[in-house]
Amino acid sequence: MNTYAWDATPTHEFAAEPSVVLKVLDQTRLPFEVEYVEIADVAACCRAITAMQVRGAPLLGVVAAYGIAIAVHHDASDSALTRSLELLAATRPTAINLHWALSKMARGLWSVPEPERFSAAVKLANAIAQSEADCCRAIGEHGAAWIREHSGERRELNILTHCNAGWLATGAWGTALAPIYALQQQGHKLHVWVDETRPRNQGARLTAWELAQAGIPHTIIADNAAGHLMQHGMVDVVIVGSDRTTASGDVCNKIGTYQKALAARDNDVPFLVALPVSTIDWTITDGVRDIPIEQRDASEVVLLSGPDDDGIARTIRVASVGSSAANFAFDVTPSRLVTTLITERGCIPAKTEAMAALRSE
Amino acid sequence: MNTYAWDATPTHEFAAEPSVVLKVLDQTRLPFEVEYVEIADVAACCRAITAMQVRGAPLLGVVAAYGIAIAVHHDASDSALTRSLELLAATRPTAINLHWALSKMARGLWSVPEPERFSAAVKLANAIAQSEADCCRAIGEHGAAWIREHSGERRELNILTHCNAGWLATGAWGTALAPIYALQQQGHKLHVWVDETRPRNQGARLTAWELAQAGIPHTIIADNAAGHLMQHGMVDVVIVGSDRTTASGDVCNKIGTYQKALAARDNDVPFLVALPVSTIDWTITDGVRDIPIEQRDASEVVLLSGPDDDGIARTIRVASVGSSAANFAFDVTPSRLVTTLITERGCIPAKTEAMAALRSE
Repeated sequence: MNTYAWDATPTHEFAAEPSVVLKVLDQTRLPFEVEYVEIADVAACCRAITAMQVRGAPLLGVVAAYGIAIAVHHDASDSALTRSLELLAATRPTAINLHWALSKMARGLWSVPEPERFSAAVKLANAIAQSEADCCRAIGEHGAAWIREHSGERRELNILTHCNAGWLATGAWGTALAPIYALQQQGHKLHVWVDETRPRNQGARLTAWELAQAGIPHTIIADNAAGHLMQHGMVDVVIVGSDRTTASGDVCNKIGTYQKALAARDNDVPFLVALPVSTIDWTITDGVRDIPIEQRDASEVVLLSGPDDDGIARTIRVASVGSSAANFAFDVTPSRLVTTLITERGCIPAKTEAMAALRSE
Repeated sequence: MNTYAWDATPTHEFAAEPSVVLKVLDQTRLPFEVEYVEIADVAACCRAITAMQVRGAPLLGVVAAYGIAIAVHHDASDSALTRSLELLAATRPTAINLHWALSKMARGLWSVPEPERFSAAVKLANAIAQSEADCCRAIGEHGAAWIREHSGERRELNILTHCNAGWLATGAWGTALAPIYALQQQGHKLHVWVDETRPRNQGARLTAWELAQAGIPHTIIADNAAGHLMQHGMVDVVIVGSDRTTASGDVCNKIGTYQKALAARDNDVPFLVALPVSTIDWTITDGVRDIPIEQRDASEVVLLSGPDDDGIARTIRVASVGSSAANFAFDVTPSRLVTTLITERGCIPAKTEAMAALRSE
């Protein structure tokens, strides 16, 4: 059941008996509370996705697949299946993996007679979850091999990461964090610098919590500190994930990634990007010019939430009242700053020719 | 009295009658409350400095000078003067301007007969305040001239700044913000991108508030966003201050400055550093190697304070509980990334020869 070496808190658990239910870890309450949400019908599954209780593109696909299985358990008819697919598809219109998983469920279930649909749906959802885990595990192994090969005789590896691309986002292993977990399993001594990742603090909240669960030594830093650490030889390698990668190797990832890549280049620190091949957008070659960058609500910059001394959740203002804020969610790191891309099929240079070869494989 | 074009909230006000008192703006309560602390004796002056109700190297010097004047009013004897100088010197042992101002007061007062010491002290303190304002004003004019000369026909200038090097830190004009205020007075259309400046948020709290007071359009951004803005032509120039500048032009400033300088260089955006000549450390030539970087308490990274919806001040945790944090306060930007240094004596390249010439002037 557990695909980790350590005893990880699972992001989701599906049970077919005594009743059909999916439990998902409520990521809006992490790291301060570890609570599960029980999903027993498709409406509850939609709510968990919309409220961002589950997040991370691969995990969304897995959860939506189990959501379909639950829906089929209640009503295996064609019309009910169609309605469930529509409801889940509408939750996060731009999440690619979610739509990929729903298409896979639809294709796999239409031809199955109604009485057998539930067991077929569970098998398909399990297969999607397993395939995501396998993909992440392969990324972990390829990334760990690259780092071992390039890190010489260092006794301890200092790795810096930005945002959260760990098992909380994928259901198992993660992408950027997968090589870290693989190195840990192989017995390497590690320490991870965790960018807090303003404005939503996914680093300080999720990555730090994940690494603590896995028993990996780590230190949270302000996003401003990465350059200083690299100048002083305190970072051996940077690993980040990718939300979208162009056919030329430009990497769109959480805002601030580009500044870390510049600091890595200025200090000869390898800058690695871990990604499933499925996140490559083969239609785009100039990421800075052509990838639209989502702007989110300014309140994420000027307000912050968390527990006070008494453990009571509070939201406070951290900026001047009369001032507005801008909130760009992602940026693009040009391929020239990327040392290597780590995919489930191996490590390749962030170059058009190498990527085209990967595609034609 | 007011050295600004706009009706600024003063950082300090000294009155000799009806009673001798110094009022200082309580910067720990900004931007949420505008409150003054009344200083009527040297102990109160020390408390205001120690509690960081006043901050910024030049302003600390001014306030300490008035503190001596107040002390002399109560007791003009040599022994009382010595004691007051010692008490104030002990408040912030590393603040260069504070010790410079105290030395100036000591030298100016020893030879003055006791009955005339108070009026001499007030005159000296006024002169120190005026000299800081003049220095900043000159930085503003030189910086504005440089920017005008290099900005071509742009209708609106977009300027990015990091941390707070404004009039709140100096008592008048500021250093990094002085050219912005000078351009505003000259009728230029401006917009300022304000880095929030984690972990202490001096940008979001102080710089944003200062610019709002001056009626200058501005937008707060996460520190992660600067690179993205520069990639998309949304920044015409970056201006920052300096806590210490080497004889070779390396700039030690608030953590994160180096990453902004890298982004500026990668996008051909001028990177300007505004500083009084007094902050140049002529004994150091390699800033990255030789400037010690202060590490502050980790709590500044993982806890944040501010008012909740009801205006009640709260402190919340913004990071995972089981994780530690590191808090480097400054970093060093190598001179190769600095387009020009703006000093009160003019703009000079961040190069050893040019700086040596400045010194010998």
